[in-house]
Amino acid sequence: MVSPSERRIQSASTPLPRSLRGIIPPMVTPLLDYDKLDAAGLERLIEHLLRGGVHGLFILGTTGEGPSLSYRLRRELIERTCRQVNGRVPVLVGITDTAFVESAQVAGLAAQAGAAAVVLAPPYYFAPSQAELLEYVEHLVRQLPLPLFLYNQPSQTKVLLEIETVRRAAELPGVVGLKDSSANMIYFHRLVSLFQDRPDFTLLVGPEELLAEAVLLGGHGGVSGGANLHPRLYVQLYEAAWGRDLDRVAALHRQVLQLSSGLYSLGGPGAGVSKGLKCALSILGICADSMAEPFQRLDPSQRTRVEQQLRALGLLSG
Amino acid sequence: MVSPSERRIQSASTPLPRSLRGIIPPMVTPLLDYDKLDAAGLERLIEHLLRGGVHGLFILGTTGEGPSLSYRLRRELIERTCRQVNGRVPVLVGITDTAFVESAQVAGLAAQAGAAAVVLAPPYYFAPSQAELLEYVEHLVRQLPLPLFLYNQPSQTKVLLEIETVRRAAELPGVVGLKDSSANMIYFHRLVSLFQDRPDFTLLVGPEELLAEAVLLGGHGGVSGGANLHPRLYVQLYEAAWGRDLDRVAALHRQVLQLSSGLYSLGGPGAGVSKGLKCALSILGICADSMAEPFQRLDPSQRTRVEQQLRALGLLSG
Amino acid sequence: MVSPSERRIQSASTPLPRSLRGIIPPMVTPLLDYDKLDAAGLERLIEHLLRGGVHGLFILGTTGEGPSLSYRLRRELIERTCRQVNGRVPVLVGITDTAFVESAQVAGLAAQAGAAAVVLAPPYYFAPSQAELLEYVEHLVRQLPLPLFLYNQPSQTKVLLEIETVRRAAELPGVVGLKDSSANMIYFHRLVSLFQDRPDFTLLVGPEELLAEAVLLGGHGGVSGGANLHPRLYVQLYEAAWGRDLDRVAALHRQVLQLSSGLYSLGGPGAGVSKGLKCALSILGICADSMAEPFQRLDPSQRTRVEQQLRALGLLSG
Amino acid sequence: MVSPSERRIQSASTPLPRSLRGIIPPMVTPLLDYDKLDAAGLERLIEHLLRGGVHGLFILGTTGEGPSLSYRLRRELIERTCRQVNGRVPVLVGITDTAFVESAQVAGLAAQAGAAAVVLAPPYYFAPSQAELLEYVEHLVRQLPLPLFLYNQPSQTKVLLEIETVRRAAELPGVVGLKDSSANMIYFHRLVSLFQDRPDFTLLVGPEELLAEAVLLGGHGGVSGGANLHPRLYVQLYEAAWGRDLDRVAALHRQVLQLSSGLYSLGGPGAGVSKGLKCALSILGICADSMAEPFQRLDPSQRTRVEQQLRALGLLSG
Repeated sequence: MVSPSERRIQSASTPLPRSLRGIIPPMVTPLLDYDKLDAAGLERLIEHLLRGGVHGLFILGTTGEGPSLSYRLRRELIERTCRQVNGRVPVLVGITDTAFVESAQVAGLAAQAGAAAVVLAPPYYFAPSQAELLEYVEHLVRQLPLPLFLYNQPSQTKVLLEIETVRRAAELPGVVGLKDSSANMIYFHRLVSLFQDRPDFTLLVGPEELLAEAVLLGGHGGVSGGANLHPRLYVQLYEAAWGRDLDRVAALHRQVLQLSSGLYSLGGPGAGVSKGLKCALSILGICADSMAEPFQRLDPSQRTRVEQQLRALGLLSG
Repeated sequence: MVSPSERRIQSASTPLPRSLRGIIPPMVTPLLDYDKLDAAGLERLIEHLLRGGVHGLFILGTTGEGPSLSYRLRRELIERTCRQVNGRVPVLVGITDTAFVESAQVAGLAAQAGAAAVVLAPPYYFAPSQAELLEYVEHLVRQLPLPLFLYNQPSQTKVLLEIETVRRAAELPGVVGLKDSSANMIYFHRLVSLFQDRPDFTLLVGPEELLAEAVLLGGHGGVSGGANLHPRLYVQLYEAAWGRDLDRVAALHRQVLQLSSGLYSLGGPGAGVSKGLKCALSILGICADSMAEPFQRLDPSQRTRVEQQLRALGLLSG
Repeated sequence: MVSPSERRIQSASTPLPRSLRGIIPPMVTPLLDYDKLDAAGLERLIEHLLRGGVHGLFILGTTGEGPSLSYRLRRELIERTCRQVNGRVPVLVGITDTAFVESAQVAGLAAQAGAAAVVLAPPYYFAPSQAELLEYVEHLVRQLPLPLFLYNQPSQTKVLLEIETVRRAAELPGVVGLKDSSANMIYFHRLVSLFQDRPDFTLLVGPEELLAEAVLLGGHGGVSGGANLHPRLYVQLYEAAWGRDLDRVAALHRQVLQLSSGLYSLGGPGAGVSKGLKCALSILGICADSMAEPFQRLDPSQRTRVEQQLRALGLLSG
Repeated sequence: MVSPSERRIQSASTPLPRSLRGIIPPMVTPLLDYDKLDAAGLERLIEHLLRGGVHGLFILGTTGEGPSLSYRLRRELIERTCRQVNGRVPVLVGITDTAFVESAQVAGLAAQAGAAAVVLAPPYYFAPSQAELLEYVEHLVRQLPLPLFLYNQPSQTKVLLEIETVRRAAELPGVVGLKDSSANMIYFHRLVSLFQDRPDFTLLVGPEELLAEAVLLGGHGGVSGGANLHPRLYVQLYEAAWGRDLDRVAALHRQVLQLSSGLYSLGGPGAGVSKGLKCALSILGICADSMAEPFQRLDPSQRTRVEQQLRALGLLSG
């Protein structure tokens, strides 16, 4: 465990802004094999994202195949990412786990490496009650050396973070925001309404197809998978929505829909988003497309279709 | 990784019988705190179980809160359990994980400690397709130093091991059986039917309320949670069903229903079975009742009700 | 509404036995077209079933496509069935509906035609709470001219009849039993245990693959879809289980598994049981195989496979 | 069945506009008792809605408790509603049913009464495949005397109308739009994108909390439950979104959230929306608050809370 004074020092290199806003891509994890990081690809990917203007990076999330990676590889990824980013934007690190101790340990590694915050979805083998979930967050927060974002991801974890649970968890020290991947905008709007007097509590939407409306109606940004591939598109959509330029929002929103509908369904429901993104990134020469078990890269015929999509999106010439 | 020749040596101390049969309790993990093993309680619990005549032990399963435990504690539990059992019955070790590498590593520890087999449910954060699941098992089996039991646990993993997937996985070297916790007896009967000419493939039922019919209609035994508390009851029920003594089956089956309906619902759906069993075991002086996060022990009023249940079951006098 | 004195007279021709036991097939509805009854086929089917020794008939259930039929056709089916049966066995009539008034009206038709009882699953568009469900049954029972069987069918109705709800509903006048199609034998065993001192409350199991264990462990019979095709097989299995002849149970149980696994999966999950049964019955010359909307009969290649199944089961020569 | 030429005549009194736009409230069904229409309340409610500027009425939907009403009452409601509206706005009539014939018959009644269109969700006892669903719509459309809106309502019907199914159904003659109550805005946006070149195909969103974004991003209006109570609020929100007045949208959207979060959760998940709306309407003296079985009106303490909500919304003075 880390003392409060140490905490400030460790994360000094990339402090979390008082109110995080914008596009924080859930970075895919470039792999040469199921347990071998593509270190060169990782560097290129990070530079690609920062050039695109993203406002932060989120590693070890769902799109990053976090739970599928060995702890050794998670550590390597955290360290290399923080070193490469080098304070240019805040790095958020997923610590979701079924084991409390392992969540705390990954958070410790994140703090040592200079990450800005950690991100936690409910433990996901057993389904806790809301009371158990709140108590869990209370216990864990005491051991965390970094600020915490809650992560609502019911399709993977089987448990919804209910509004009342979020309200109470948000009162704990160090709980600074929430990423909602439920795709339920009624839920998201209720959170925006609940936290309208707390601009320091950051509300980010997961599915990129919902980024436009989330920001138009009071949300603070998005953890958009497609920003791995085309960061500027998502940054521009965020800025257009923030600036209330509805014509521009409509045009960029359509591009996002085109990208997501063309790319994510090829690889099946389990990890189709990551498979599609990695395939596209490898076509563009940015990083390798190996997947962590239990998944495999797209096959050659699917890869051809991804190439067609990239041409249609103007991301590949010829 | 371990070479084939090493495999035999490592597991020599507690070889898996050619055809495992009987009651293999899913052992609760005695804890003094969420990350502190109750080592003395563990010894007493193991002796309690072996005195009750059980045919094996299964550690790090659902009832054992496996996914909630730190890897350090999992290792300690494996080593202490194998040492205490010392070859008297086979020890099966749960290796279910979201990360392929961690499953393989726990399997390695199990082999070194002298366990007889490992048990694997599908990786449970992402939901793989049946084809992906089969490929996953194929890849993992190559790295396993011990025989493998499949584990069908759809309510926790979100994925059913479909009959055809089991059929094909059972053809892989080292895949020796399946534990079914789906509570779907149509599924279980279809498996019995499918494997009727393969007596070496062991079919075990999870829910203890289904033990009677599973054995009466061709299954080989049960991984019965209640056997933690009252091992002899479950061994007797197994023997009565195996011996087709229907009067005795009916009487013992009723006792099992009484135990499970009285004990498991107090602690809520998430981990009510483990909470009830640990509370009862602590009342009987066998081991402590701490739970791993995100769960907590039953409260005093619930404990009083467990005492009443133990009296009604004849397990507590006074 | 019907006065209490009328009730007795109307159902006098086919009284419900004090304790219904045995095989009560959920009769398929023979159709020439989606809204045209196959009247001659219906007569042949009823005689086929009665020759097979069944202990009752259940019409307008799930297998009978009850909710898909027009009320005009439901009335015709009730009248023709009761007339043809003519008191030889009790006829049970499904009255499950989303509209309270329509349930009561079909019950009235059933009583006038001489049916013995009605069968009610929860209303299935809105999902009521357990308290609302109990109140609904209380209100409806007051208007019913015939005894009532509850029907637990959560996969279609989205609502489980919880044990406590059944316990309280069973205290209402006229509620005489329950058919459980949940395929959850833990639930069924708990009901058997709850009603062990009330032999007048009949507990029937839906899925035929669970008939053997249901009767071996205290249930009273089955509403077995396959009995439409091969009534004697199910009657024999029921009798073997009732008589505790385990060798015979095992052999007949295997035949039931063979029939159900071969026949019901061809037509998809929605109405595969009815499609398979109707196809087989039409091959045997018993009745037509038209389905009610939104379903269609099996296609010629599937029909060929059904013929093969019938040969394998010894029901078709050549 | 009705010939094409008759169709035009029958619906002449309230023709469907070429492209329906705006707020079409899913009207609650005012009841004096579970099977007794509140005819005077119905008149007052319709005038209340039309005074509020709504662009159409949708009767016999989910909020209208359609499936819970007797067919006699459905007919009475259709006739009285069409007579009272008298061509001032188009009336849409829900014909969702488990029985094909009953859907067609209610559609016939709607046409005779002068309704403008009918609305159909998938049949909801059995879960058809997408192919079966499409075939069902094809068969039914041939018998319909009025244009058809599809209705995606997976939480009640268990079946999603997949995008491809909608695409193909929209090519059938007479299929003119879709109401989406899935609360899944990714799905809705994909439909908007799919039909961007077909302005005659009307896309309406169900949940009122999603009205703002649905219209901002290309949808055509909403079937908003709260418009029963406060029609002008929803009409104004629709107009603000249509006119791209984002400040006004934000303010009105917040009012909608306040109304829905305060009013709909009191009565439980099954029919809480209808219970809350009817209670509020009865407090305002517009209509009675009886519910159709299996539901009951809110109790006095809940009614007091509804009164408080109405005061907070400025709909009740004092």
